[in-house]
Amino acid sequence: MKISDEDRAVILFSCPDRRGIVTEVSHFVSTYNGNIIHSSQHKDEDEGIFFMRIEWSLTDFAIPKEKIRSAFEPIAIKYGMNWELKFGNERARVVIFVSKFDHCLYELLIRNKEGELPCDVVQIISNHEDAREIADYFKIPFACFPMTADTKAETEAREFALMDEKGVDLIILARYMQVLSPEFVDRYRNKIINIHHSFLPAFIGAKPYHQAYKRGVKLIGATSHYVTTDLDEGPIIEQDVERISHRDTIQDLILKGKNLEKEVLARAVKNHLEHKVLTYSNKTVVFDY
Amino acid sequence: MKISDEDRAVILFSCPDRRGIVTEVSHFVSTYNGNIIHSSQHKDEDEGIFFMRIEWSLTDFAIPKEKIRSAFEPIAIKYGMNWELKFGNERARVVIFVSKFDHCLYELLIRNKEGELPCDVVQIISNHEDAREIADYFKIPFACFPMTADTKAETEAREFALMDEKGVDLIILARYMQVLSPEFVDRYRNKIINIHHSFLPAFIGAKPYHQAYKRGVKLIGATSHYVTTDLDEGPIIEQDVERISHRDTIQDLILKGKNLEKEVLARAVKNHLEHKVLTYSNKTVVFDY
Amino acid sequence: MKISDEDRAVILFSCPDRRGIVTEVSHFVSTYNGNIIHSSQHKDEDEGIFFMRIEWSLTDFAIPKEKIRSAFEPIAIKYGMNWELKFGNERARVVIFVSKFDHCLYELLIRNKEGELPCDVVQIISNHEDAREIADYFKIPFACFPMTADTKAETEAREFALMDEKGVDLIILARYMQVLSPEFVDRYRNKIINIHHSFLPAFIGAKPYHQAYKRGVKLIGATSHYVTTDLDEGPIIEQDVERISHRDTIQDLILKGKNLEKEVLARAVKNHLEHKVLTYSNKTVVFDY
Amino acid sequence: MKISDEDRAVILFSCPDRRGIVTEVSHFVSTYNGNIIHSSQHKDEDEGIFFMRIEWSLTDFAIPKEKIRSAFEPIAIKYGMNWELKFGNERARVVIFVSKFDHCLYELLIRNKEGELPCDVVQIISNHEDAREIADYFKIPFACFPMTADTKAETEAREFALMDEKGVDLIILARYMQVLSPEFVDRYRNKIINIHHSFLPAFIGAKPYHQAYKRGVKLIGATSHYVTTDLDEGPIIEQDVERISHRDTIQDLILKGKNLEKEVLARAVKNHLEHKVLTYSNKTVVFDY
Repeated sequence: MKISDEDRAVILFSCPDRRGIVTEVSHFVSTYNGNIIHSSQHKDEDEGIFFMRIEWSLTDFAIPKEKIRSAFEPIAIKYGMNWELKFGNERARVVIFVSKFDHCLYELLIRNKEGELPCDVVQIISNHEDAREIADYFKIPFACFPMTADTKAETEAREFALMDEKGVDLIILARYMQVLSPEFVDRYRNKIINIHHSFLPAFIGAKPYHQAYKRGVKLIGATSHYVTTDLDEGPIIEQDVERISHRDTIQDLILKGKNLEKEVLARAVKNHLEHKVLTYSNKTVVFDY
Repeated sequence: MKISDEDRAVILFSCPDRRGIVTEVSHFVSTYNGNIIHSSQHKDEDEGIFFMRIEWSLTDFAIPKEKIRSAFEPIAIKYGMNWELKFGNERARVVIFVSKFDHCLYELLIRNKEGELPCDVVQIISNHEDAREIADYFKIPFACFPMTADTKAETEAREFALMDEKGVDLIILARYMQVLSPEFVDRYRNKIINIHHSFLPAFIGAKPYHQAYKRGVKLIGATSHYVTTDLDEGPIIEQDVERISHRDTIQDLILKGKNLEKEVLARAVKNHLEHKVLTYSNKTVVFDY
Repeated sequence: MKISDEDRAVILFSCPDRRGIVTEVSHFVSTYNGNIIHSSQHKDEDEGIFFMRIEWSLTDFAIPKEKIRSAFEPIAIKYGMNWELKFGNERARVVIFVSKFDHCLYELLIRNKEGELPCDVVQIISNHEDAREIADYFKIPFACFPMTADTKAETEAREFALMDEKGVDLIILARYMQVLSPEFVDRYRNKIINIHHSFLPAFIGAKPYHQAYKRGVKLIGATSHYVTTDLDEGPIIEQDVERISHRDTIQDLILKGKNLEKEVLARAVKNHLEHKVLTYSNKTVVFDY
Repeated sequence: MKISDEDRAVILFSCPDRRGIVTEVSHFVSTYNGNIIHSSQHKDEDEGIFFMRIEWSLTDFAIPKEKIRSAFEPIAIKYGMNWELKFGNERARVVIFVSKFDHCLYELLIRNKEGELPCDVVQIISNHEDAREIADYFKIPFACFPMTADTKAETEAREFALMDEKGVDLIILARYMQVLSPEFVDRYRNKIINIHHSFLPAFIGAKPYHQAYKRGVKLIGATSHYVTTDLDEGPIIEQDVERISHRDTIQDLILKGKNLEKEVLARAVKNHLEHKVLTYSNKTVVFDY
């Protein structure tokens, strides 16, 4: 949801499909004098699941903000909803993980600074020192946790402690070259967004540009997805591709890919922050408004 | 709306924006036991206009098809709607106009034959004989009306007579190289779809590929729009582009452009036939479902 | 190479990289008064292979057409070239294989008819009768060879006999849903172009749109490649993608995919027919002129 | 030309088309034992102009760098070439002009820092103070020259003095919202690259996103071009587009456009810095290697 002078609320939910859901949810908003800004629905016919996002202005809304949750709850219970309620003036608290490649980090921080990504980046964490000067420039706390196979569990524990202290709504892996432990992933289910530098499911795993070069593809891709315990197998939020040719060396692929990665990751993060993304069956629904 | 075993209805409307429209329209469908398949809304905040498309299953719907119009009318009047009601098993009656270039004609007829464009092509009209064999192959009536400046009015009158006889919901100008008279355009307001071989508003008028070549652009485009009395100025339904380079001659542009034109025109026609397009202020709202 | 009033020749070759190749080949053309229309080179630095395509006008060329091969041969031997010599007025003899989906077949035949694909389609072969009426309309011989596991070898033998009789430079699998035997593939090495309805190497094998739907990708693709004995593993000539969303059902993917497949296949075939494609290491070099 | 350990030279030229040019230029390189890395040609058949770019390794090249110019000059004179000779280890000296929007400035500086744009940014000039902190972070001299209609001539004179002092090969207008005087443009012919936030020639002049919104286009564009005295009419180097819909407000267009502008400008600058761009007849030849 966009930052606006006017305060807004969003309800995002999925539930078993039944008749009357749209009507009842719309009625909840309009009967208390809320003005619907956007309303979007989707139905997976095969699985019988219904998805909805409704965004409305709180100006003149009869229910005070702090009571909206309890007012809507009976509807949520009636339909068996998996739901969340968000307000336009709440900014997500975000931690960015990065290793040495810093192009995605820069992109996120600049778009954040320019108002395109409505969130507060509360911490940057890296397994290297390289990004510290960038964090300093953008005035964001930076922590370096070098990572070795032996110390992974305890290092992650220190990361958890730091994140608990800060309060974290979203973790972005902006070319973070470490595999997270299953404990890490479970702790932040649907709250970790990664960028993988290939058009998944092609070229899973290490060195996807080398794989792409070897296979002789004519397009390279990038994929942003939620992290699950299966490497590069989580629900895809956004993908895009860029044309290449036989003239492009692996170095060229890496270069072209960088600009693709940062764009794809930024779009995925934006959709998440605007509460437009729902997950189910290892897939996503991404509403366009 | 897609062809389906199950019968469906669509209401498509625009009206001045007011609170409660979504709720009231949704309620109309669900209270009579209709199952909403798709529901899409849009609001132009500057102009204060609200747009909505709602598609529902008629299975179990309590109001018989022939009475839906009168049942919904009070809501339409209350909100001052400009509206239409369509049924899934009604197929639009379409006339295609073509001159000598036949790639768009072929594309439309093949996609129609293969079920992608749900309509009945009831007539092909041309100012040349060239397309007759294509019409024969697809078993569609063909009429040739040669066009000269002197006889334009009377020739168009004959075209009107033929179209009146056939009954026409949509006219497609599939690279028809004659300018329609204002009378023609007025007669079929928002019912004539043209394909212009440029990225409008660049390169209005004759020989857009020659203009594009001369200007040295790096992309060529195609634009499908409703025809108004201002040449190439009507509401745009769909556009797309294709990359070119200094190596491309005018002949290359024409060739690349052909494949672009047929794709863009077919997409625009599909959206129109599925009742997803609304016009206002010389623009379109094109719902994606 | 384009069809032109003026006659042209093309030499296309690869060889181990050495200094002086461009100079010597250019000199061969210009010393005999040939006017170079296009000249394109590429070098794979890792593998040390050099690739070149040179196209020149035969107007005023001092060597008669029938002697060009023997005149160039010493240079080819000196550099160890894998080479071919082609003339602009030679049209490749093409056989198209098709099963039931006919959109790629239509596309190829229409582009051929309109001069975009410079070849003679001498035969259409299918394992079903469905495409016969299309062949008739385009006045191309049609043969139906129903295929069963038991009779595959003998049926292919009959196909070989028919193709030998016709003389075949290129085989196009335009959504032909049978796996060719290794004998078939070996017989027409680098002469069989297939269209696979996914962005290879993702979704190899059967039902790629179903696989794509299940994985929840945000783009679908199509890949045109030379056929090798490893299914869907041959050198890629062309690929492209189309955006989809969670709203698209498998049927929608199939529909969007059809338009992608026909475009990608047509582009690959065009490049092949214009003698712009070289293969090596299971990859292609596709010169853009 | 890419930065490389190995030293390289590039000759880029245009001249009236005659037979034998490729051969003679290739021969010049190979006879002195230069190893050709890339060689690219183009011919405008209508205008009878020939274009060529040849890049070779100086390792083992028999002519010392400082004598290559005079060694090649007789060939240049013979063919009437408009030519330039560049070396891989020479880095262009670049000045960036910017006003308040800083997304293009950031993009250029980050890509420069990461090695993608091989140049030295020697100065940033603005008519506002806003970008000073960015310049400081990247350790580039910053000068603010506020601009008023009355003082334009004298302010530009101060800019010329500063640029003369620094030595300037290329000026980039990275969303610089001032029109340059004809004197400024003449002084740096084919050395000023601008980014215009529309798909030129559509929406020339002020507020192109507002124009695009009003016209209801379905794609927005960005165009990078050399600056001439006709506003937004100079030779186009690169263009690209992004899909929009009726849902996008003017603010959305501005936001989507920013990411397009920075990408298109960076690509144009890269091609220029790699000596791949030639201009003629208000168009460009952009070699892809």
